[in-house]
Amino acid sequence: MTAIGIYGSAGRMGRAIIDQLEDAGAVLAGGSDARGDPTSVARVADVLVDFSAPSALESHLAAARAARTPIVIGTTGLTAIHHELIDLAAKDIAVLQTGNTSLGVTLLGILVQEAAARLGAEWDIEIVEMHHRHKVDAPSGTAIQLGEAAARGRSTKLKEVRVDGRAGLVGARTEGTIGFASLRGGSVIGDHQVIFASEGERLELGHRGDDRSIFAKGALRAALWLAGQAPGRYKMGDVLGL
Amino acid sequence: MTAIGIYGSAGRMGRAIIDQLEDAGAVLAGGSDARGDPTSVARVADVLVDFSAPSALESHLAAARAARTPIVIGTTGLTAIHHELIDLAAKDIAVLQTGNTSLGVTLLGILVQEAAARLGAEWDIEIVEMHHRHKVDAPSGTAIQLGEAAARGRSTKLKEVRVDGRAGLVGARTEGTIGFASLRGGSVIGDHQVIFASEGERLELGHRGDDRSIFAKGALRAALWLAGQAPGRYKMGDVLGL
Amino acid sequence: MTAIGIYGSAGRMGRAIIDQLEDAGAVLAGGSDARGDPTSVARVADVLVDFSAPSALESHLAAARAARTPIVIGTTGLTAIHHELIDLAAKDIAVLQTGNTSLGVTLLGILVQEAAARLGAEWDIEIVEMHHRHKVDAPSGTAIQLGEAAARGRSTKLKEVRVDGRAGLVGARTEGTIGFASLRGGSVIGDHQVIFASEGERLELGHRGDDRSIFAKGALRAALWLAGQAPGRYKMGDVLGL
Amino acid sequence: MTAIGIYGSAGRMGRAIIDQLEDAGAVLAGGSDARGDPTSVARVADVLVDFSAPSALESHLAAARAARTPIVIGTTGLTAIHHELIDLAAKDIAVLQTGNTSLGVTLLGILVQEAAARLGAEWDIEIVEMHHRHKVDAPSGTAIQLGEAAARGRSTKLKEVRVDGRAGLVGARTEGTIGFASLRGGSVIGDHQVIFASEGERLELGHRGDDRSIFAKGALRAALWLAGQAPGRYKMGDVLGL
Repeated sequence: MTAIGIYGSAGRMGRAIIDQLEDAGAVLAGGSDARGDPTSVARVADVLVDFSAPSALESHLAAARAARTPIVIGTTGLTAIHHELIDLAAKDIAVLQTGNTSLGVTLLGILVQEAAARLGAEWDIEIVEMHHRHKVDAPSGTAIQLGEAAARGRSTKLKEVRVDGRAGLVGARTEGTIGFASLRGGSVIGDHQVIFASEGERLELGHRGDDRSIFAKGALRAALWLAGQAPGRYKMGDVLGL
Repeated sequence: MTAIGIYGSAGRMGRAIIDQLEDAGAVLAGGSDARGDPTSVARVADVLVDFSAPSALESHLAAARAARTPIVIGTTGLTAIHHELIDLAAKDIAVLQTGNTSLGVTLLGILVQEAAARLGAEWDIEIVEMHHRHKVDAPSGTAIQLGEAAARGRSTKLKEVRVDGRAGLVGARTEGTIGFASLRGGSVIGDHQVIFASEGERLELGHRGDDRSIFAKGALRAALWLAGQAPGRYKMGDVLGL
Repeated sequence: MTAIGIYGSAGRMGRAIIDQLEDAGAVLAGGSDARGDPTSVARVADVLVDFSAPSALESHLAAARAARTPIVIGTTGLTAIHHELIDLAAKDIAVLQTGNTSLGVTLLGILVQEAAARLGAEWDIEIVEMHHRHKVDAPSGTAIQLGEAAARGRSTKLKEVRVDGRAGLVGARTEGTIGFASLRGGSVIGDHQVIFASEGERLELGHRGDDRSIFAKGALRAALWLAGQAPGRYKMGDVLGL
Repeated sequence: MTAIGIYGSAGRMGRAIIDQLEDAGAVLAGGSDARGDPTSVARVADVLVDFSAPSALESHLAAARAARTPIVIGTTGLTAIHHELIDLAAKDIAVLQTGNTSLGVTLLGILVQEAAARLGAEWDIEIVEMHHRHKVDAPSGTAIQLGEAAARGRSTKLKEVRVDGRAGLVGARTEGTIGFASLRGGSVIGDHQVIFASEGERLELGHRGDDRSIFAKGALRAALWLAGQAPGRYKMGDVLGL
């Protein structure tokens, strides 16, 4: 069985991953949080999973690299410098970095890109998402990722076509734009829908997150896959073979 | 059979109403547009339907009043002065004024008010609508009407709790607010959904307009009902017996 | 604070109710399961909640009656004899029996009845539900309850208009029927949607159960409300003041 | 401009295609119905579109072949013999045969196959569709096509995993099955949704047909594309470059 080492093992995601280990057919090699030792964890693990803080990324990557252990990075709030560190580490070990470890969302992004590439500009693209009442930003990071997938499919940049929070006398829709709408309420974990609307028909591609455990399960599936990979930088889509 | 007189008979809604007359079990008493004579139409009709322009409302009401003929007013863009004219006419004849003649939307408004009145403030209310790419304003007038119904159910005013086009770092949701989100694309006639979201559950009340003929059919059903009513001012909800 | 006594306290629902007590502003008076003493629990409780087995209902009702303590009954699988026992007990104490303690589902049933009563027979009624892959029966008990609410609104009996699992060369839809469709998959807790479809428009009234805790919370809200009621038999709708 | 010849030009689809010719940048070469001459139409057309009857297919294919004119076949109710005739004709001319000419539905089928191929068997597949009250069969032909796409993605045959119209004590869901549910009501043109449901998440891929004109537009887009193709048998997916 694959032995998983966890950075940020005391956090919400770290504990959720530990809960899912057995179902995933994996065992815990060891964990470390703010006070632990990343080096010893890296040595005994077949693959590492990091859901800690951006400030710890450099030492985690160094430990993984020293031990030649692949690492999945789900830590959010990374900057350009962190991405450079990841690219550097990817020369020696397999590294998979992602902002969303749900397999369903990963596949949705791929299908959205495909649909956007195949449908002409007369198909308007709208993205609507709903999250719980405590979420402070809109649209969600995942909605933006889906918008980037749609823009990529159309060979354009999202920032050039993005329209957020339509309200007031906004005028008729501009062809080629991608609109975002955000709903907030209750305890919704995360629902996303991408709508392609043309004259007389609509294609609707969506995902519902019904339980937070999907993020832990996706991270583990990514880890099990990454354990056997050659050095390089990978994405969640690679796990699905896309 | 009830004889219907139509003001604005050459317009899009006027023609759509004429198309639906036979199915509704009614006959055309006569029609008038910008160049017609409202008085003679009012005399031969059992009930009038007005989908013309605000500027013609005063003369239409005068003709209806003189002939003691009830009148359904679906003209949009009315101001406070028009509403005073309607109230005055309603002393002598039955007048029904509405911004949306769809029976489904009318019933939805009533159900939304009922739900808002029964569910506590821990149920967040969100309203999302989708319309065709040519619509220039957001949210739709019907979405606002639904928001007013929800606010009424909670004994508050919509303007005090309304949140439009959430985007950016908006912070956690404020209890008691009603959020609006607008999607635009393709040729969608008009879809509306009101979501009540609490911890662990959601109530979703929605309406889909699949064909523009529903507005003509609703106007005719209102006219047939209004033909037999005593003087007074009525709403679409009265047609449904609510 | 209201003291709650729980029959079936070791079961899944019993434990879920205990988890929610503090949030609901209630305290545990005591619980009993197969080996406990229902009489002593009934004496110290302000109100009882029973999620045990049909075979225990008679002794639970007797204990509640002897102590003059109101009781909420959420046990499923009751037969006509159980309902007679409940009616008898309701002469001395307040009893609320229900097959679904979710407030959202309760309100949905009331809205569905209202809509069915207001919309003519040209509005076709369809009910679609989705539940997890382990559910063995179709349609769900809640879907049937919603169908009964719709039939009641139309002053008919569900059994006379019910159409299950349409498949094959079924012919055109018969006016007045109520169709049921059941989806099964994943871990879905319970989604229900009632669709009223007419020429050119659809009214869609639905509920999503995102978390099992809603059933415990609804049972507690019912219990707190029932604690102060006069003898008689009550329904979940009464809790919402409908 | 491409000159289109229409077989079945007096039928509902034939007339709808003629209505869309100008918008599609095409012209009418000629049409024939039961009493017309297919040969002369085939000679003057750049490409043919056939929405007539299975009994006329043989003579239509012969006329197309004699004139070396490509042909789009949208006629439904074809049998194995018709498919052999098509294969034979495809040796000399380009032939595209399809049961649904909507581009959105075509793309949906491709996305469904892709999703089914990427997601493991722990993702349950359910297909739900809604059509107008006059439709006599269930599930719809398009729903079955989507089911075949899903089965293909899983390298299985639909007939071996298909479950229609679940009702009664059906037991827990069997892994690997594909469930179908059909809703009927009002005037719905055709809505389809394929749900992939796993533990804690759902991927929902759907299409809404809001206007019948989409079928005529899709047939024309197919015809314009087919006009320049080498002999062979093609599918709607080829039009989208997939």
